[in-house]
Parts: sequence; structure tokens; C-alpha cells
Amino acid sequence: MERRTGHEAFQHHSNPPDLLHSFLTTMRTLLLALAFLPLAVLATAQQSQLNLMPMPSTVQMGTGQLAITQSFSVVVAGAHDVSLDRGVERFVAQLSAQTGIPFRAKPGAANAALSVHVDRGREAIQKLGENESYELTISETGAKLTAPTPLGALYGLQTFLQLVQPSATSFAVPAVTIKDQPRFPWRGLLIDVSRHFIPLDVLKRNVDGMAAVKMNVLHWHLSDDQGFRVESKKFPKLHEMGSEGLYYTQSEIREFIAYAHDRGIRVVPEFDTPGHSRSWFAGYPELASGPGPFQVNAEGPDAVTDPTQENTYKFLDKFVDEMAKLFPDAYFHIGGDEVNGKFWDANPKIQAFIHAHGMKNNQDLQAYYNQRLQKILTKHHKLMLGWDEILHPDLPKTIIIQSWRGQESLATAAKQGYSGLLSFGYYLDLMWPAARHYAVDPMSGAAATLSPEEKGRILGGEACMWAEWVTPENIDSHIWPRNGVVAERLWSPQDVINSDSMYARLNALSLHLESLGLTHRSARMHMLHRMAGTEDISSLRVLADVVEPVKDYNRWDDAKGPIDFHSPLTRMIDAVYPESDVARRFGNLVQAYIQSGFKDQAAEAQIRTYLTTWRDNDAKLHPLLELSFLLHEATPLSENLAALGAAGLLALDYLDKSRPSSESWRAEQLALVDRAKARNADVLLVVAPPVQQLIEASANPARPN
Amino acid sequence: MERRTGHEAFQHHSNPPDLLHSFLTTMRTLLLALAFLPLAVLATAQQSQLNLMPMPSTVQMGTGQLAITQSFSVVVAGAHDVSLDRGVERFVAQLSAQTGIPFRAKPGAANAALSVHVDRGREAIQKLGENESYELTISETGAKLTAPTPLGALYGLQTFLQLVQPSATSFAVPAVTIKDQPRFPWRGLLIDVSRHFIPLDVLKRNVDGMAAVKMNVLHWHLSDDQGFRVESKKFPKLHEMGSEGLYYTQSEIREFIAYAHDRGIRVVPEFDTPGHSRSWFAGYPELASGPGPFQVNAEGPDAVTDPTQENTYKFLDKFVDEMAKLFPDAYFHIGGDEVNGKFWDANPKIQAFIHAHGMKNNQDLQAYYNQRLQKILTKHHKLMLGWDEILHPDLPKTIIIQSWRGQESLATAAKQGYSGLLSFGYYLDLMWPAARHYAVDPMSGAAATLSPEEKGRILGGEACMWAEWVTPENIDSHIWPRNGVVAERLWSPQDVINSDSMYARLNALSLHLESLGLTHRSARMHMLHRMAGTEDISSLRVLADVVEPVKDYNRWDDAKGPIDFHSPLTRMIDAVYPESDVARRFGNLVQAYIQSGFKDQAAEAQIRTYLTTWRDNDAKLHPLLELSFLLHEATPLSENLAALGAAGLLALDYLDKSRPSSESWRAEQLALVDRAKARNADVLLVVAPPVQQLIEASANPARPN
Repeated sequence: MERRTGHEAFQHHSNPPDLLHSFLTTMRTLLLALAFLPLAVLATAQQSQLNLMPMPSTVQMGTGQLAITQSFSVVVAGAHDVSLDRGVERFVAQLSAQTGIPFRAKPGAANAALSVHVDRGREAIQKLGENESYELTISETGAKLTAPTPLGALYGLQTFLQLVQPSATSFAVPAVTIKDQPRFPWRGLLIDVSRHFIPLDVLKRNVDGMAAVKMNVLHWHLSDDQGFRVESKKFPKLHEMGSEGLYYTQSEIREFIAYAHDRGIRVVPEFDTPGHSRSWFAGYPELASGPGPFQVNAEGPDAVTDPTQENTYKFLDKFVDEMAKLFPDAYFHIGGDEVNGKFWDANPKIQAFIHAHGMKNNQDLQAYYNQRLQKILTKHHKLMLGWDEILHPDLPKTIIIQSWRGQESLATAAKQGYSGLLSFGYYLDLMWPAARHYAVDPMSGAAATLSPEEKGRILGGEACMWAEWVTPENIDSHIWPRNGVVAERLWSPQDVINSDSMYARLNALSLHLESLGLTHRSARMHMLHRMAGTEDISSLRVLADVVEPVKDYNRWDDAKGPIDFHSPLTRMIDAVYPESDVARRFGNLVQAYIQSGFKDQAAEAQIRTYLTTWRDNDAKLHPLLELSFLLHEATPLSENLAALGAAGLLALDYLDKSRPSSESWRAEQLALVDRAKARNADVLLVVAPPVQQLIEASANPARPN
Repeated sequence: MERRTGHEAFQHHSNPPDLLHSFLTTMRTLLLALAFLPLAVLATAQQSQLNLMPMPSTVQMGTGQLAITQSFSVVVAGAHDVSLDRGVERFVAQLSAQTGIPFRAKPGAANAALSVHVDRGREAIQKLGENESYELTISETGAKLTAPTPLGALYGLQTFLQLVQPSATSFAVPAVTIKDQPRFPWRGLLIDVSRHFIPLDVLKRNVDGMAAVKMNVLHWHLSDDQGFRVESKKFPKLHEMGSEGLYYTQSEIREFIAYAHDRGIRVVPEFDTPGHSRSWFAGYPELASGPGPFQVNAEGPDAVTDPTQENTYKFLDKFVDEMAKLFPDAYFHIGGDEVNGKFWDANPKIQAFIHAHGMKNNQDLQAYYNQRLQKILTKHHKLMLGWDEILHPDLPKTIIIQSWRGQESLATAAKQGYSGLLSFGYYLDLMWPAARHYAVDPMSGAAATLSPEEKGRILGGEACMWAEWVTPENIDSHIWPRNGVVAERLWSPQDVINSDSMYARLNALSLHLESLGLTHRSARMHMLHRMAGTEDISSLRVLADVVEPVKDYNRWDDAKGPIDFHSPLTRMIDAVYPESDVARRFGNLVQAYIQSGFKDQAAEAQIRTYLTTWRDNDAKLHPLLELSFLLHEATPLSENLAALGAAGLLALDYLDKSRPSSESWRAEQLALVDRAKARNADVLLVVAPPVQQLIEASANPARPN
């Protein structure tokens, strides 16, 4: 599931989502909804103006609204549960922060506006598949939240928070009845803390964001070639020599797990082995299958674990013993991906071992290793989880396969009786637009043909935030708000797929997340200010608003050599959003204008405003680009944006006058568009394609409507 | 120094600073500088492009710059001091955050780019008047910071951080030699945590801001009628019944004092007595001079302490004993302001006491009280500090008078041999523009006529953040960046008074402060989003950018009755900046345009852009104003802004055509301007006066240049 060797597995798409396709999909969805869906689901489709993400499974609108006033309070009934009590406390604090209202009433007041009832308390250790459903009923006089377990109640509180809006008379939530439960029981986010260390306060705010979108698993990628991030008391050289001093102590880990547990989130640790494990060898080179010395964050020899030595298993037994106690979750992720066979090939003793044991190849050796490791996990009461490559018939059916390769390997596993999770299509580091992640369904493709029983083995999925190109400063903007659409895909009914509705709700979610403490928006401003060194960055924002990072693994230019994980991530590509809202809106306007037969004057006026701003921006921005070394590389981008603005305005002039543009003029302009589409400073000027559409449309301005 | 009864003492000025006056002042300063000042100070005036605030006492520019690269490191020599070590650690972390560079070198490297040398370690308890000077020399090859004490070194590190800018080749600091020391030894900020409780994390980030502008005293206004905020183990009903649960524990206080000490900041506690002390009486009504019951944050009877009972002094003796141990600073602020005599008048026993002791009036009784209290403080090794009213010849000369009434009472005290601090003119809650605070000098007015010895008794001053109208959410924007100009007044040479330079540097400081964690800018965006409930708030920002809160005590309309300290502070007035940068810039443009004889086309173009935006903004904003109850009240503001925009554009048209406007047209427009100047939603449309200037100028467009 890594990028180092695995990037061939991905196609390179850097186009914005196909708008026509999106429109047709929307129409199809609506027609389907009207024709076939039960009333409750129809309500869902209609009520997409509710700013909820993920969309609940059923929504029934009522009449009126419940005002949120200073006398608002919550009463909790039913089973007593401390994590629910704390959840309600956080809910009230967050509601107060959102509305700015210092509530007067003490919690538990008799006439509480919101009553919460749960049937039973929580499991001490959160389990896969616990009941997460809830019902939330809001009327003009009060709100009631009921759930079998505190988990459901916690989700219901998140739904309530997302419903709060200022109305004409007060803050309020609309009268509504919501019955909700997740589609999949495993809804995760992987955060890689090895390539760049991510401090706990940053992880905590991301856990808050996960809770807001009803995700329930933090997959903590704790070790990789570039860093081993957990204190080990049994093998202290793991963190001492494998982390450059950047690791979590065991007491910090315990506190963090409790923090996540309080929010209904399981923490699943991953210690990647036998590949991706150079950081282990910095302190314990004897585990490696090749010669050292090994250092983290330095380009010394790579290696993989040697599975032929008994000492390896003794080490792992003690190590798993320690970590199994530290991490209470039932699952233990052993990685298992991208084992580079050349290290085993090069070691005669390992090759001798393969022959002596009648194995055919390195894959068999890895299977042997995984079987040994699986027995160790079982001894320490853990269930194994690993990437695609660990799938092997000799392993028990209790293991879970996490697919970075696609629905096909998921389906293969399910047919063989193995449970699986989808991560293919949910790699947030690939800089895809939200709509592209949103279109990926665990049950589509090869998985769609599975039997119901086999389908039942697909437990959900995980978004993945690999950390080659993120720092604590910009990781939030690489995860959010896009992670919300993966969360929705895994929580909401399969037919919730309208991407216009998704984008409208994603915008609202983005705002909501900042009020929870995420920094995905504010960090961009801070970084742009740093680049400019000045207070007024309006012209820099104009440019930053219309570019996106290159997609997939295109930043990683092999010609540039290996990544220097110590280098600053302070360039334009590091600051800008993975997806440009402005470009999407501009594209939509151009689409609407063209589809109206060039008659939509409101759209045209807005298009002109954008184009004029872009045309005139370079003159303003240019002096800034000269001043700062961090901005030099943006010079061609700024010039190209000005050229696009000018070309687009000329195309509009042709269309306004219903006079076709000449072929030679168009050829000239399209050459310019091609230049503007090229990668500069590792970012893409994503407004080039809709400007191209305008230029092409100018060939035939009198097209009948 | 309070607003409840004291607001007659202030004049109500809500005009923007007089620009012509400012211009003349600038010219005068420059001429004076050229004519009379030594070379070093001349350099200061010339180098105002260095983004330093406060401006150092001498600045000598060198050639070239020192690059800040990944190999940057600091070495500390001379006396060893743990708080300096921690200061250097924070410095490196902040430099890394500012530049985004993860430094490679370990601190203390042999070839360190910055070497720091101090002669001696710090006092365990920071003292008034410790040497705070430093010298910072930066060349192309390295930087050297020397200081007699770690305090000076900490200030020098702050200066270094403010000098960092992106250059054409890298981040860098300019080659420069700075010799710096403060003008006054007491440079404080008062934060009232009684009217609204301010949590420690908010105080901490404000302490970081204070350190950045070289302030050295946090005056912690810990008790007032509305809340007693310190845990008392001897008198637990003080915090239990006097704080509604919002108070600091003693261990939190100790930790906070250590935090401030690390940053070179003394913490001086204030327990206001005998007035402003209802919160004491909630738990201990027997201390009061009138009947209870007393409650905080409720409009019950007010009262002042009864100075005629011996039990009062027994209580104070035990209380001061406890607090003297908790707060290590040599000074203890006893308040002493605004004692409402009616409570003593109404108590026959108190009146009998006055007569029996041969006192003439309530003032004599307060002096008696202060003398008793002063003896208690002395017993517990504390020096007394209090507001103007405590000045009385029977008190020893060791006390310090803090003047909220003006330089005159400061001069009076100095003549009598008492030391003093100025706070008059530095009340940040009055919503004055920075330039108005900047113009207030402790040595001006009556103080200017003092003898050198008497002048020596003026120790400095304190900005004051009274908390009737601030919450943890918006307190930063009420303190910052304006507090920077008070800090500069108290640190920099008296002749550093150019307000254009000040505003340029204040803008840079504002940006720098956000990178330190202050939220004075980001909170406004969050609050505007809350008001609108939508993601796109561009039109709301246009309005928010050109209004300011009403000034002085004008928000506090007695007709509205007492302030409800529980009510939400979520209105436009709470969100907007105390001073509008846009209005100041627009005013400057209008000034330049008029002074050019209407020939400055660049200025006119910018004026037109502003006016057009304002004219067209109401149409965009209006739908939002309808939707949200928090925005309804802004409707007339938005309409008036549109009218101002339209009127200003018409005036420009007259001027462009060199055709005088008619008197009737002007009368009509000026009536409109008058409406626009009126208070609406408790804010002022501060672009009205420059628009008025344009309208008036249109009477005579052919004015010779």
C-alpha cells in the first residue's frame, strides 16, 4: 500500500471531475429516487439541504425548529456510562463554542431541551461491530436522542451539532426525525507518523474530526523505514535509535488511546514487517536480512527482516507481548506490504532456508513468516490485520485483509472466507478531488458480484494519510475536509452519491471542522503569509485559489532522487488545498453558460469577474514573487493565469457578439492553454480546462439553444 | 480606574486620528531628527522599515544579510541559566515555525550561527529595575547577542525573531547592530479576569505576546464585584461562592507564574478592596459594610468592605499571608479605586467610627484602611500598589500609585515623593485607535514639568484590558495588536512617535503575533462565520472591515440597565476589530487625492474600487442579513455603506469633470453622511468622514494644485 514501489498500481488522473457525467449521475439518482426508493430514503435525497455529513440513513423533516437559548441543557437517562457523560460535557462545550452562548442551566435540569437515553453501558474495550445506531427526534419543544449503546448516542450528538444554524430568531436545530446506523462497521483513517512525526495534539484534533464524521478506527502507522515512533521498554533501541528522538512515550500512548476511546474511536497499531522496517534495524541490525549499518532518515542500505532466524521470532514474541498490553484493541496490524525480494535473493542463507523447507519463492517465505507471527499474535490474544500481500490460505479466517490494490483483491479474499477493508481509492495523499474518492465504493467492481455472505465479509474501509509530504502544520488540510466523503461512503446508504449535494455539505463540514479546532484552512493562510513575508497577500491568494498539487505520485520524481524527509515543506504545493473550490465553481459556471446556449447572463457576469481578476492579478503579484525565494517558482503560474484570464475574456467577447472566432486565433489561444496546463512548481493551474472550453465554444457562438 | 462610576473622567473621541496633524508631526520629527539628534538615533528614524516593535533605542544598519538555513543553531555561553536555556529552546522552535525549516543542527554546535552570552544568571524572583539591556550584532557570517542578564538576552531573541524575513535567496535577517534598553522599568498589561473569566491557556498566549513586545509585568486583576478567581485554602468560600466555579487553583497559579517568569514577566496580583469587592461578600458577608445577601453575577445589593471592624483586619492578615506566599512578586496590588461612599454613609456604626477617630470624611476612613492594610503587607514582605485614590501622605514612600486619571495625578504623586505608573490613556477596552494610545506619554502634560529626580519616580505604565465586553474568544483582538504601541511607548526612546511608521510596523507585528498563537485575526473570521452560518462571508467581511465599535463607555448605555455578564458576546461589535485598517487606508487615499488637487490618479482609482465595492455590497449582503438573527441589526449599516459608496462615486464624477456639485446636491449627500455616521448596532461606519471630505471637495473641483 506504499508509494515507493507501488505507484504503478494507480492510474494517473489529474483532470477535474467530469461535470457532464456528474450532472447525468445526479439526474439518474433523482429519477431512481423518485421511482423506486422507499419514502424514508426519498426524504434523504430531498433533505440534502441539511448540512449533515455523513448523511443519515433516514431523515424525516418535521415542522418548525427548536431554539438553542441560554436555558438549553441536556439530561442523560438510562444506563450510566462515564464516557457518555464526558461526551455530553464536550457536546455542551462545543455547542457553546459554536453559538457563543454561555449556557445558564446546569446539566441534568428537569426541563432539559435535549434528553439522551441509552440502554446499556459501553464495552471497556471498544469492539468491532458494536451497535452504533441512534434515533434523534427534534420538535419545537425539545429533542430526544435514544440509542442502544453510548456509541450511538455519541454519534447522535455529533448529528445534533451539525444541525445547529442561526435562524431569523435564534440559533436553532430544525424539527426532524433521524434514524441512523452505519453501513459498515469499520470506518477508519490511517495516519502515518513515521515519515513525518505527528505530535499528539495534532492527532487529537484529527480524532475530534473523525468523531464528527462518525469514523471509528484510527489506524496508527507507527513504524516504517523512516521512523519507529513508540517507546519500547523491552527493546529501547527501537525508539532511541529509530526515531531521532521523535516518538510517543507509553504513558502518552495510553492517554491518547483513552482520548480516542472517549470519542468512540478504536486505535489499531501498525508495526510494518518484514518490509518497510529499516527503523527497527537502526538499533537491532541482527534482525535484518542484509548488512548494515542502518540509519533512519539517511540513505543507507535498505533491508527487510530475516524470517529464517529463530531469534527473529523470539524478538517478535517479546515485542508483541509488550505492545499487546499497550494497545488494547483486538486487532494488531503487521503491515506485510511491499516486501522487496531482492534482499532475500541476495542472502545465500535465506535462499538455502527456502530450498530446505520446500518453498517455491519469496512469497512462500513471507507466508511462513506471517504464520509464525500470527501464532505469536494469537498467543498474546490479538487478531491479525495486514495489507493485501498477507493473503494466504494457510492463515486462519480470523485475519483481516486491507486492500490497497482494489476491490478485486477484496473480492478474492472474501471468496476465500477472509474479511477485508478497502483503502484503494481512499489515499488522501494522492491529492484527488473529493468527488473521485466519493465515487469509490467497497461493494463496486469485483465486489459487486459477491454473494450476500461474501459481501458480509467486507467490513468497511480506511482513508489513508501517508506522510511523505505532510508536516504537523499542513496535515490537517491534506486530510480535511476530503476525509468527510470517505466517512460518508462508509457510513451512509450506498445510494447517497449525488456529488453536488456532497460538495455543498462538504463546505459546511469544512467550516464546522475549523470550529472543532482543525486547522485545514487557517494553516494555508499562515503558510501563504510566510511565503510572502507581508501582511497583504490578496494577490497571492488569487493564485493559490486556482492551483492544485500534482496528483498521484507525480510529485515524487525519481529523477530527483530519494525524498529528503528533513527538507522544509513550505512551497506553494505544500500550502494550497488538494482541491480548488474556485476552480470547481468556475467550471460549473462555464458549464452552465455553455449549456444555456451562451444566454445565462448571470453566469457570464461571474465568469467575467473571475477572468478579469486573473488577467489583472499578475501585475499585482509580480513584485511579491520577486521578493521571496519561496515564490520565485510561481512566476510562470502567475503569468499563465493572467494569459488564461485574457484569453477567456476575448472568447467571451466573441460569444457576446455572436461572431465566431477564427481558427488561427483559437489555435494560438489553445497553445497558450496547453502551456498553462503544464506542471509548474509542482502544481497545476486547474482553471485551464474550463477556459479551454470557452475558447473552443467561441468557434460556434450561434449554436442553437 | 473602572468604568462603572469613573467614565465621566474620559472625553469621548471617536474620530479617526487627524491625518493632517499626523503628517505634520511626521515632518517635524524628521526635521528634528536631521537637525539635532545623534547619529544612532537618526539611524533609528531611517530604519523604520525594519519591522521591529518596540523600536530599539539604537539601530545601525550593516551590509548584507545572515541567511537562516537548516544548519542554523544557537550556542549559549557565559553564565548558565535554566530560564535562558528554555528561552533559547523556545526561540529555536519559534524560528522553525516561522520559517518552516526543521533545523538539522543540535543546539550548541561549534559553528553556531547565533551565539548568546550573558554575564550573570537571573534573580529567582524577577525584580523591578533589573538590567534588561542587550546588544545584537548581525553580520553576513553570524550573529552575536550579549546581555548583562538573561532578561536582556530574552529580549534580544525576540528582536531577532521580528527581523526574520524571506529574501530573494532564503529566509534571512539583515546585517545590523542594535543596542537596546528600555526607557521605563515597568511595562505592564492588566488583564481583568473577574468580569469574564479568562482561562490559563488564553492568558499564556497573551504572555507570549507580551514577551514579543518586551513587556515585563502582567497585572492580574483577580477579584472584582463579579468574581473572585483565586482558590483560597484559608477562606474557601471566596472562590467557592465568589466565582461560579470559574477560578484558578493554586497549583495552576504557580505553574502560570513560572511560565511568565520563564518569559521575563512578573505577575502582580490585584485583589481590589475596599470597593469592587462584592465577590468577597458572597462567602463572607460579615466583611461588608452593608446588609446582604451578596451574589456574584446577580444584581443584588452592592457594598464595600467595612474598615471599622477588627475582624476585617484579622481576615486580611490571614488572607495576605496566604496570597503573599502564592504570589512571589515584591508588589501586591490592593486596588483601592472607586470606593462608593454611600455604603459607609448609610451605616451609622461606620459614621460613629469616623467621628470617634476624628476623621473628616470617607476619604480619611479609606486612608485609615489603607494604612492598616499596608502594615499587613509589610508584615508579609510585600510592597503596596494601588490606584490613584490610595495616595495619602500617611502612607510610606515605598508604595506605587497607578494612575487611571492622568499624568496630573502621576505628577502630584511624584512631587510628594511617590512612584507612579500611568494607565490613563492605555485602556484598551475603550476601543481607541492605536495612534491615540501611541500619543499618550507618561512624561507629557503635567509630568513634563517635573524635576529630573521627580521624573525618575515615574516607573512606566500599564495597558489595561477590562473585561466587561470580552470573552476568551475575542479578548486577543481587543488586546492585540494595539498593545504593541503601548509597549513601544514604554520601551522605545521618547522621540519614536511617527505614526505612519508605527502603523506599518504594527501590521507586521500583528502577523507575527498570529504566528505566536494569538488569535486576534482568526477569531474574527470564526465569529463572522458564526453570525452568517455560511461558508461564503465575503460580503459580510466588506462591511465588518469598515466599522468600529463605539468608543469609550458608549456601549454601556445606562438606559439599558446593568450589564448582564452572562449574555453572549456574539454581535458585530464583538467580532470586529477595534480599529479599521481599511478605513485608515481609505482615509489616507482620500487625503492624498485631495492634497494632489485631485490629480493623483492612482489614489483615485483605488478610491473608486473601494467605493464601488461598498455601493454594490448591500445587494449581496442583504439576503444574509435576513437569514440570521445575529445580522439583522446590521441592516442599516449595510444600507448606509451602499449609500456612502454611491455618494462618493458621484462626488468623484464631479471632480473628474471639474464641474462643481450643486449646494443642494451636497446638502442631500451630507445629510446621508450624517445618517451614516450615527451609531447603529453599537458600531460606527468609520469611512463616513472621508466620504464626507470627497463630497465637500466636489464644491470646488478646480482648486489650484
